[in-house]
Amino acid sequence: MAAHIPVESASVDSALVGSTDAAIASGSTLLPIEEIARRMGIGRGALQLHGDHIAKVDVGAIDGFADRPEGKLILVTAMTPTPAGEGKTTTVVGLGDGLRRVGVSAAIALREPSLGPVFGMKGGATGGGYAQVVPMEDINLHFTGDFHAVGAANNLLAAMVDNHIFHGNALELDPARISWRRAVDINDRQLRSIVDGLGGPKSGVPRDDGFEITVASEVMAILCLSRDLRELKAKLERIIVGFTTDDRPVTAGDLKAHGAMAALLKDAIRPNLVQTLEHTPAFIHGGPFANIAHGCNTVAATRLALKHADYVVTEAGFGADLGAEKFIDIKARMCGLTPAATVVVATLRSLKMHGGVAAADLAREDLDALEAGLPNLLRHVENMTEVFGVPTVVALNVFPTDTAAELERVELRCRALGVSVVLSEVWARGGAGAEELAHEVITLAEQPSTLEYAYELEDTIVTKIEKVVTRIYGGADVSFTLDAQEQLTRLERLGFGQLPICMAKTQYSFSDDATLRGRPEEFTVTVRNLKISAGAGFIVVLTGTILTMPGLPKVPAAETIGITDDGRITGLF
Amino acid sequence: MAAHIPVESASVDSALVGSTDAAIASGSTLLPIEEIARRMGIGRGALQLHGDHIAKVDVGAIDGFADRPEGKLILVTAMTPTPAGEGKTTTVVGLGDGLRRVGVSAAIALREPSLGPVFGMKGGATGGGYAQVVPMEDINLHFTGDFHAVGAANNLLAAMVDNHIFHGNALELDPARISWRRAVDINDRQLRSIVDGLGGPKSGVPRDDGFEITVASEVMAILCLSRDLRELKAKLERIIVGFTTDDRPVTAGDLKAHGAMAALLKDAIRPNLVQTLEHTPAFIHGGPFANIAHGCNTVAATRLALKHADYVVTEAGFGADLGAEKFIDIKARMCGLTPAATVVVATLRSLKMHGGVAAADLAREDLDALEAGLPNLLRHVENMTEVFGVPTVVALNVFPTDTAAELERVELRCRALGVSVVLSEVWARGGAGAEELAHEVITLAEQPSTLEYAYELEDTIVTKIEKVVTRIYGGADVSFTLDAQEQLTRLERLGFGQLPICMAKTQYSFSDDATLRGRPEEFTVTVRNLKISAGAGFIVVLTGTILTMPGLPKVPAAETIGITDDGRITGLF
Repeated sequence: MAAHIPVESASVDSALVGSTDAAIASGSTLLPIEEIARRMGIGRGALQLHGDHIAKVDVGAIDGFADRPEGKLILVTAMTPTPAGEGKTTTVVGLGDGLRRVGVSAAIALREPSLGPVFGMKGGATGGGYAQVVPMEDINLHFTGDFHAVGAANNLLAAMVDNHIFHGNALELDPARISWRRAVDINDRQLRSIVDGLGGPKSGVPRDDGFEITVASEVMAILCLSRDLRELKAKLERIIVGFTTDDRPVTAGDLKAHGAMAALLKDAIRPNLVQTLEHTPAFIHGGPFANIAHGCNTVAATRLALKHADYVVTEAGFGADLGAEKFIDIKARMCGLTPAATVVVATLRSLKMHGGVAAADLAREDLDALEAGLPNLLRHVENMTEVFGVPTVVALNVFPTDTAAELERVELRCRALGVSVVLSEVWARGGAGAEELAHEVITLAEQPSTLEYAYELEDTIVTKIEKVVTRIYGGADVSFTLDAQEQLTRLERLGFGQLPICMAKTQYSFSDDATLRGRPEEFTVTVRNLKISAGAGFIVVLTGTILTMPGLPKVPAAETIGITDDGRITGLF
Repeated sequence: MAAHIPVESASVDSALVGSTDAAIASGSTLLPIEEIARRMGIGRGALQLHGDHIAKVDVGAIDGFADRPEGKLILVTAMTPTPAGEGKTTTVVGLGDGLRRVGVSAAIALREPSLGPVFGMKGGATGGGYAQVVPMEDINLHFTGDFHAVGAANNLLAAMVDNHIFHGNALELDPARISWRRAVDINDRQLRSIVDGLGGPKSGVPRDDGFEITVASEVMAILCLSRDLRELKAKLERIIVGFTTDDRPVTAGDLKAHGAMAALLKDAIRPNLVQTLEHTPAFIHGGPFANIAHGCNTVAATRLALKHADYVVTEAGFGADLGAEKFIDIKARMCGLTPAATVVVATLRSLKMHGGVAAADLAREDLDALEAGLPNLLRHVENMTEVFGVPTVVALNVFPTDTAAELERVELRCRALGVSVVLSEVWARGGAGAEELAHEVITLAEQPSTLEYAYELEDTIVTKIEKVVTRIYGGADVSFTLDAQEQLTRLERLGFGQLPICMAKTQYSFSDDATLRGRPEEFTVTVRNLKISAGAGFIVVLTGTILTMPGLPKVPAAETIGITDDGRITGLF
């Protein structure tokens, strides 16, 4: 384990209280990234610098890496979120800082931001207030190029698929059964559904096609689930790009594409190291969305962090029904990780929304609505403790508009129900606002616990889906479209029945209907289709009308983002 | 000017003579990039490291940058090339090393490789033999992410165009007149011509569309022609994405996209610094193709190099009819550069090809064919000296298969015609093989010269095209299709008549017919269409059937590229 590292007080200009995230971040003093690494026991020789405050870490250059003991893993998840999100990333950052403040060594492990949301609706994804990772402009814009590398590997394979057909199609790929799509890291609905290969016989073979956002690519999932280059190559080789007319799968390996794809990912597989405003080491690496993909950062980064800190705080995307379920049933199971405790982030806004309050009125005090919304939070907590068997605390992420009466009501009700709850004030106070949460997490993580899964790999695909729907979502039943039924039979026949499942579902409800708030019951989830990700090693189960390519809003965030003549980024939140 | 830097002998394992480029490169010893920079007078504070051997340079962090005197610029170009290329990049590298060996301070400025050719036919673009820039694996694969940033800026604008139409089209863009295309840095013929926006009313508006390779994007040209962020933003703002139904142009500025595009290019605009095998500083930055774009590295890198070395060797793509013409008529004129001398690279292979020898027989001695091919070379030399007024030397790039009799014949014939010619053996000998060339270049660069252009900006568009075709290509006439005639009138009416022209033409002939070898005469060039690049500040003149999206060959180089479990790239040449 890493030695205990003294905590600096947040070196942030206190005059900036009340300022924007960007102003707070730009008013902070960053340590050289070599210093952050050195304090953790990672030497300069293992670093590939990207400027002064970002480094990629070459795990192979760390002496005795495999033999080091591992720290405790804390998983931060959330209740069913509002569109603005409940502050999971902010909580991870603040909790990491808070753990160091109370005297243990800690690091955090997060996903990288996608340019889609940055230029779309959401803005940056680097925390907020006094709980941020920095340098935020770089992390939000290209960072170390990992997503572009994933996109390039994805698109090289796509080009090789169509090039193979163009040059005689020796593998007899059926152009109507190609499942491999192209990718771009931007919200571009215009590319969802296209016909390409037009323009005559020298310009390809016309066929239905489409793009997905890079974070939804199987290559992203593979990058995140590969412990090293050897695993990465093996997974890339197994990717199924489509099928022959007699339904035999054709893989990236058949096309001899996996080597070049892995070469494109040679740096992308190395975890990125940055720091929080309070100089806590932050590994930010990989970034699949949790509604359409598995929603966790890379296993390489999580393991690297665990080898260099006594406590590692990580997050899984969206609500616990999506991100945390996949974290445990896919990532933890596949990669041998065990969370020692989970933190379920809740906000008064979200509780009120699930209690029936309209979006415009969420800032108004409404004690009854708060109580009415609690069952949503409680189901998530029960899932964590009773289904997965992990000690859990609720972190109530405090907003400036929250009233004391409201906060008190939620605390009282939770405690009455036996749920551990702590106020988290990390946005306003940084790590100091998470000290109580840190103490509680340490207590929980010392409890004995046994990780359970929502389903077993030996279950049939149908049983796996039913178990997630009934045990995690609280639904009554699952129905399958004819397409889905056909795929079920086919995937079992092709030998993929033993893989875990990756549910693609709306993040706004336990059900597949985004309008069903709170803790719905007696609902049926409809499975539209299933898709094999043979490289990543899971079956994607598509419910509702989940899109793998978002669109931009009427006034995209891009319109206000800019750069001054001397290189300062403006308008990025 | 930079102080004289002592030349190291090439620190390459001599046992590697006869090895592949990759083996030679991996057997070399690189200096830390800080040391390369320091020797040139660029301090650590101006460097943004990307690992130990690559840095971006922040021009703004160099004290007194604007007031420094500039070195002499040497432009390396070539005769009309064979598909394999005649070794311009290798010559630039070797000449840079050779100049330092003969005692002057020197740097080189090259374009970045595109992933398209790397995974397609050509392989890497980092020189060869003992004249290479390193680390070649990184430079050829992503490098510092500049091309991905260009692609992202290009595609963000594309998404904002279609998003604007989707959300009500307040600017009244005509979907049938959108000229802005999407980009990807891969050879993917399947994307040349597509219909996008399919899939129903929530997924965009169906229209004809297509992708070009990133190097053909106007954003790439803008990046290369912008001296600083201020210019970059101004040029991005002027990009025309399409026209309204009543033919008013709509710009990136109208869509409020230019700020976010510039933010995406915040690092891309900083020149990349690497080194040759002999530790000569090498700025590798920007990379438009010369057949479909203007074919030169960035003005930012060229200027940075000129401020830190007495001699800067740079290249322009393909033959002198394409790259060098555009270098002088576009880049040099727009950015205030003056080449002190040009080097026209010739090979026996290319001379024989222009003398009528078939590709399969180019390695066989054929003195008559050599003589028959000379007029091609001589026309390029005459263009450089007589049209552009720049002192010029022919560098005969020696291959292992060349015979003494052949080399002697070419030297004798050139000298009889008053053409300066020097053997260049940089592939086999590195800088030592370019010492004679270096001496000749220094002599030429000391001669007084006055740069002339092939046309004046005040000429009409038609006159500009006619001057390039008759004065540079040696053609008799220009014909315009009906489409082109319509565009001519339109572009003059829109006020773009005073811009320089960027000819898009096959690289395999002076004419627009790739099969016309040698020094064709009496030919007519057909202009198919014209396209305004209002941001970059030129008019693209499309001749023949130039494609802006290449395809992969039947067996792409990608099939043999790979990576070992410990991270060593294999199969990259």
